[in-house]
Amino acid sequence: MKIKEIAHILNGSVVGDGEVVIERIYPIDEAGAGDLTFIANPQYTRQLATTRADAILVRPGTKCPGKNLIIVSDPYVALGKLLAIFHPDDSHAPGISSHTFIMDDACISPEATVYQGVTVSPGAKIMRGVVLYPGVFIGRDVLIDEDSILYPNVCIYRKCIIGKRVILHAGVVVGGDGFGYANPGVDNQKIPQVGSVQIDDDVEVGANSTIDRGTLGKTWIQRGAKIDNLVQIAHNVVIGENSIIVAQVGISGSTRLGKSVIIGGQAGLVGHIAIGDHVMIGAQSGVHEDVSSGMTISGSPQMPHKTWLRVVASLTKLPDMRQTLSLLVERVKKLEEEYKVINPS
Amino acid sequence: MKIKEIAHILNGSVVGDGEVVIERIYPIDEAGAGDLTFIANPQYTRQLATTRADAILVRPGTKCPGKNLIIVSDPYVALGKLLAIFHPDDSHAPGISSHTFIMDDACISPEATVYQGVTVSPGAKIMRGVVLYPGVFIGRDVLIDEDSILYPNVCIYRKCIIGKRVILHAGVVVGGDGFGYANPGVDNQKIPQVGSVQIDDDVEVGANSTIDRGTLGKTWIQRGAKIDNLVQIAHNVVIGENSIIVAQVGISGSTRLGKSVIIGGQAGLVGHIAIGDHVMIGAQSGVHEDVSSGMTISGSPQMPHKTWLRVVASLTKLPDMRQTLSLLVERVKKLEEEYKVINPS
Amino acid sequence: MKIKEIAHILNGSVVGDGEVVIERIYPIDEAGAGDLTFIANPQYTRQLATTRADAILVRPGTKCPGKNLIIVSDPYVALGKLLAIFHPDDSHAPGISSHTFIMDDACISPEATVYQGVTVSPGAKIMRGVVLYPGVFIGRDVLIDEDSILYPNVCIYRKCIIGKRVILHAGVVVGGDGFGYANPGVDNQKIPQVGSVQIDDDVEVGANSTIDRGTLGKTWIQRGAKIDNLVQIAHNVVIGENSIIVAQVGISGSTRLGKSVIIGGQAGLVGHIAIGDHVMIGAQSGVHEDVSSGMTISGSPQMPHKTWLRVVASLTKLPDMRQTLSLLVERVKKLEEEYKVINPS
Repeated sequence: MKIKEIAHILNGSVVGDGEVVIERIYPIDEAGAGDLTFIANPQYTRQLATTRADAILVRPGTKCPGKNLIIVSDPYVALGKLLAIFHPDDSHAPGISSHTFIMDDACISPEATVYQGVTVSPGAKIMRGVVLYPGVFIGRDVLIDEDSILYPNVCIYRKCIIGKRVILHAGVVVGGDGFGYANPGVDNQKIPQVGSVQIDDDVEVGANSTIDRGTLGKTWIQRGAKIDNLVQIAHNVVIGENSIIVAQVGISGSTRLGKSVIIGGQAGLVGHIAIGDHVMIGAQSGVHEDVSSGMTISGSPQMPHKTWLRVVASLTKLPDMRQTLSLLVERVKKLEEEYKVINPS
Repeated sequence: MKIKEIAHILNGSVVGDGEVVIERIYPIDEAGAGDLTFIANPQYTRQLATTRADAILVRPGTKCPGKNLIIVSDPYVALGKLLAIFHPDDSHAPGISSHTFIMDDACISPEATVYQGVTVSPGAKIMRGVVLYPGVFIGRDVLIDEDSILYPNVCIYRKCIIGKRVILHAGVVVGGDGFGYANPGVDNQKIPQVGSVQIDDDVEVGANSTIDRGTLGKTWIQRGAKIDNLVQIAHNVVIGENSIIVAQVGISGSTRLGKSVIIGGQAGLVGHIAIGDHVMIGAQSGVHEDVSSGMTISGSPQMPHKTWLRVVASLTKLPDMRQTLSLLVERVKKLEEEYKVINPS
Repeated sequence: MKIKEIAHILNGSVVGDGEVVIERIYPIDEAGAGDLTFIANPQYTRQLATTRADAILVRPGTKCPGKNLIIVSDPYVALGKLLAIFHPDDSHAPGISSHTFIMDDACISPEATVYQGVTVSPGAKIMRGVVLYPGVFIGRDVLIDEDSILYPNVCIYRKCIIGKRVILHAGVVVGGDGFGYANPGVDNQKIPQVGSVQIDDDVEVGANSTIDRGTLGKTWIQRGAKIDNLVQIAHNVVIGENSIIVAQVGISGSTRLGKSVIIGGQAGLVGHIAIGDHVMIGAQSGVHEDVSSGMTISGSPQMPHKTWLRVVASLTKLPDMRQTLSLLVERVKKLEEEYKVINPS
């Protein structure tokens, strides 16, 4: 595809030679003749001069004489569009492998693809366009709606509902029992976990993440939320629309997130709290109370992000402060004694 | 079931109309006619007035005129009992699917349930009442004792011993090699991990958690311990009876926990330390030395919980303290100079 | 095997009776007659006097009259060698189970071992000596090179390359989509992840760890690196040779580690940073910027380890410092007022 054709598709403009033909998309330090690359993170702008790529997607205002630039409003969005064109998704011929275990009253669309070694339990419904990779387990009365993809060894426990165009990566477990025991540490009486999990349309969940079923009612991942690898979502949690949960985050029971919440990696949230819309939570934060909409917080325990920046800037000074304070106490004591000498009354 | 019958089963008493028939158990904000709900966490008491449930399990002393209350000593325990009655566990017809891979000298009780796609290796023993879901792998010489349930894709490496009524959720790995290398960072010589894992009766382990085999000897999860999702238990760790390990905790090699220890989510323990009985460890703590029985600790690194509360209360004041201290140094310096003027000797 | 024969194999020397026959290797507190044990961690030296083992591997300079000691330069290395002799690895008869799903143009060496329930996709190559345990999924165009072992339910997505003598423990996922969305929190447009993962020779990855494919280009685990359980490696990360990554670490996208880096458990690294050779990163650290070769860092956010030790030593004093500071402000104020009385001008 010619550079000018690519620019046209992306609503971008060309600076340089639009006639050059692009065959591949490559990282900036590996790209060569026939390759297109991109600069989304300004940190990499210095590599613009040295890349041997034949075309570079860049932000408006970027200049580099001698290079063929495609100016687009958001190079990362543009990259996404191009990758989808250059690397179309795997296609899957519809059909059910003869080496599956489909229970009698399960219902599978003839337009779904079910690979070998898949189990579909009684009462489950698999809609058209769904792909179930080998080793997937679908429990009783589960619904997998249109065009969802479940990668190898995904396990969905009974009664859970998976929406349309959902992607569950390998090893994801949906609907395991919530962690609920009466008399914890004494006799640990198990509370039966009889709720379910509902995952709405366009959600993606990363490899080996776990989403527990509700004790009663449901755990609910709302439309468009994206969850990274190795994330723990406890019973009765609600994740709002279009939220982003980075790897290894843990969210405790009954906590509710608004929409468009972004949580950095390895953060932890206690149970029974409410996080407002558009909240941003820094990586490794420990969140133990409600957070109002629009706030950015960091730290463990949590504080406003700006406060946290000031606290961590002071933290390494703490040992010096301690010494200064100790000396100052002595100096003040001396002054007080001297004052008494001057003015003994 | 009538409210008065439920109260009778729970050793509770009715305030209100005991004749109302209950058909379902629901969360307090979703419950309606024919539903029972509960208040275990006092945080939700304010919802008592607005719930439309026909019956509510509450603590002694709770009042709400016009509602049908069932007064019980512990509403959460009572809920557990009721759920087990209203939602009995799935039953599994005993038998071995013809699509399993049972090695010649494995031994499986005719009263066990082994679903399709399960592997049972030579020398393994599967006792009566056990349920092995699809995709489970049982290694050589493993014992799975009576009435244990292994959910899909659980993997048990060779020689491990699983007790009675143990529940292992989907994706749990028991008996993987411990992480042991001589000359770490130099040539990383692997130390063969030839020990095993012993899990005692009534233990439950959450989805995708990992429990490594001992280097020599065993990693040991004692009776009644409950482990949440995505927890890491390293080689030769001992988890004492009835301990509770919340999600994403990591426990390093050869560390020993007493009984009834409770560890909050995402806490980490270094290797080769001893944690006493009834210790409580806060979420996200970093524990690097022994902890005496009965202590409650928090923080990374660990400190007594009360100290930690005072430290975190001061932490956000640190930038102001730094400024105050800096100004105070100047003021004292000035006082010292002024004193010299008054008293030059 | 006699003690003197063991010492000979290990290039060690015997103090005590070299004729005693050793049959097993056991932990120091469980060993008895016919058993050999070891002391690698000096913390356990006090157990030397009480162990009933017939032989003990110890460091030079260790003394314990009446015990049979084998003096070796590194007891842990020596233990590794002995364990490999006393407990040889499982052997696997080469061959392909008839219950596998091998696509037409996949290529499997007749000297590989492929157990039941394995899927090998079109274009994949499985070399001699490889062992694929039940439930393993091998995607399109994947290469698994000689003598690698993939434990049950490992999943390798398309186009990934696994080197020689690589060990992937149960549940490992290699090549899942990197976590990349344009307009995060707004409309979360998925960026197709079209790169791959390359794992070089002699790498080991612990149970349920996840290694994402590159967005473009590759995620790269270099020769001899050892990765523990439940670790998250994001897209386009590079892990240098012989690095050691302890359990539950998370490394964000495009971060590059030098060789022989050691990262303690639960540490987190942000994306797009460079970590030099031989860097050591403490457990639970939060690393947000480049680290020069040879440094040891700790804390969240990171600081030099020595600074961190001083900071944490002061941290518990912070509440007292705050109080002292507050009192000191009052005392200085009083002194200032008194000075004004003496010297009103």
